[in-house]
Amino acid sequence: MADKMNTIAVVSKLFSNFFVHEVLQGIEPHLFKGPYEVNYYPTTGRIDIEKDMLKTILYERRADALISISTPMDEDLMQAYKNSGIPVVFIEESCEGGHTVKVDNVKGSFIATEYLIKKGHKKIGVIAGEFLDKRTNSMVIERLIGYRKAIEDYGRNFNEKWVKHVAYYTFEEGKEKMKEFLNENAGLDAVFCAAGDLCAMGAMEELRERNIKVPEDVSIVGYDDILTAQYNKPSLTTVKQPIEQLGSEAFELAVKCITGEVSKDESKLIILDPKFIQRNSA
Amino acid sequence: MADKMNTIAVVSKLFSNFFVHEVLQGIEPHLFKGPYEVNYYPTTGRIDIEKDMLKTILYERRADALISISTPMDEDLMQAYKNSGIPVVFIEESCEGGHTVKVDNVKGSFIATEYLIKKGHKKIGVIAGEFLDKRTNSMVIERLIGYRKAIEDYGRNFNEKWVKHVAYYTFEEGKEKMKEFLNENAGLDAVFCAAGDLCAMGAMEELRERNIKVPEDVSIVGYDDILTAQYNKPSLTTVKQPIEQLGSEAFELAVKCITGEVSKDESKLIILDPKFIQRNSA
Repeated sequence: MADKMNTIAVVSKLFSNFFVHEVLQGIEPHLFKGPYEVNYYPTTGRIDIEKDMLKTILYERRADALISISTPMDEDLMQAYKNSGIPVVFIEESCEGGHTVKVDNVKGSFIATEYLIKKGHKKIGVIAGEFLDKRTNSMVIERLIGYRKAIEDYGRNFNEKWVKHVAYYTFEEGKEKMKEFLNENAGLDAVFCAAGDLCAMGAMEELRERNIKVPEDVSIVGYDDILTAQYNKPSLTTVKQPIEQLGSEAFELAVKCITGEVSKDESKLIILDPKFIQRNSA
Repeated sequence: MADKMNTIAVVSKLFSNFFVHEVLQGIEPHLFKGPYEVNYYPTTGRIDIEKDMLKTILYERRADALISISTPMDEDLMQAYKNSGIPVVFIEESCEGGHTVKVDNVKGSFIATEYLIKKGHKKIGVIAGEFLDKRTNSMVIERLIGYRKAIEDYGRNFNEKWVKHVAYYTFEEGKEKMKEFLNENAGLDAVFCAAGDLCAMGAMEELRERNIKVPEDVSIVGYDDILTAQYNKPSLTTVKQPIEQLGSEAFELAVKCITGEVSKDESKLIILDPKFIQRNSA
């Protein structure tokens, strides 16, 4: 077995998006105490670049463990990593032979919707993402499953007209979708913005312009707990994903694989719970 | 000369802070068109780790060029990079023999303060950062210089009592410092929050609680143009740093050094202008 370098390689399509930014916030505090270092490899998602990078890390023995953020790996390459004794920890993905750390998106949507039901709301709309690429897909689908499960668990009927989709998760789209709900006279008394806090803030802006009060007339729940959610007027009730914790758990799991605390034959699956944050918008 | 690998190494203390996050947003779009790849190396700022990483990149010939974000380099190491034909581009730092890309912080503060003066404001306070480490230091100092220069260029007297400092650039600190200004009866008709938009939003919250109107009674200008600045009530007038552009220019300069378009004997200095964004808070 090669000497330990105490280095963990982290691959991701990009490192400039908000999700990865928060994952790094969970990884980097571990670096100060040492002895582990990390190197980051943005693959752009282009298959050729991605394979090249994964092979460089493997064959140049650049790392003792690999963390792969939202990036699947083909089975041959996974096997090559396994044969070289380089453990692989996937964040929000999985592959036979590797470990996985992920967030329970079904649960996040379920608890938000359940909260609104228990508050007495009868007509709960949802603004969700669109079905674009694979990753968005599974996140979007899981959140809709959670919403629908809560609706049906409490004996209600799922109504397709109360579901709207946004492509870019923006403030403007949230405002637009709320306008559509209102213009269609859907009569909603709550909207769960599974597509994020920015959409929720946009939806609230549309309500404000029409003098519809939040939460008195319509309750709003967001998703993500972005930096300014707590300072919104009214402050935004939302679902916080433990994204930092994803990074932290993945790092700790990678270290346990390096030290042998987790054996080569184990495949760990860690599923983290999202957290419901009750404020004043619902 | 060694073969080109078309790889650019990027070092930074951390990659999980907002400044670096935006720098990466300027770098990563370049990766899709190829042929250049980047690898990121978080040094934690610990001198031993930092030197080790810089030596690994150099002696293992991991890259054809180095971009160093807010990280100074000692002259011996800089010389070793130069001798190996690996050009170094510094962002917000400089070192003899390397290139520099930076933002003009003096100008950013100057244009914000000048705007308030031209609007007719007589008593303009400033909430700035504290003098902590080297980097914060120069940014904080440059912004105060810009503020003071505008005040004095327009024949006013600089008043030390109108300057307050915050340590963590938070909403809560901005609120607290505005409270202090008000309790001290400073009689300010404008406050420039050089410490950022979150501080500005906190300051506005304190004014709102006291029924002091923005901008009618007190004008507020922020710094940074964070995601929700435009959705604030009233929308926040602020200074936007071209941080993405810092990353983009540094990447392009590194490529020009690799291709020889910028010769080994040149030392480039690129200074970018911040942009004043007029909205409704001032």
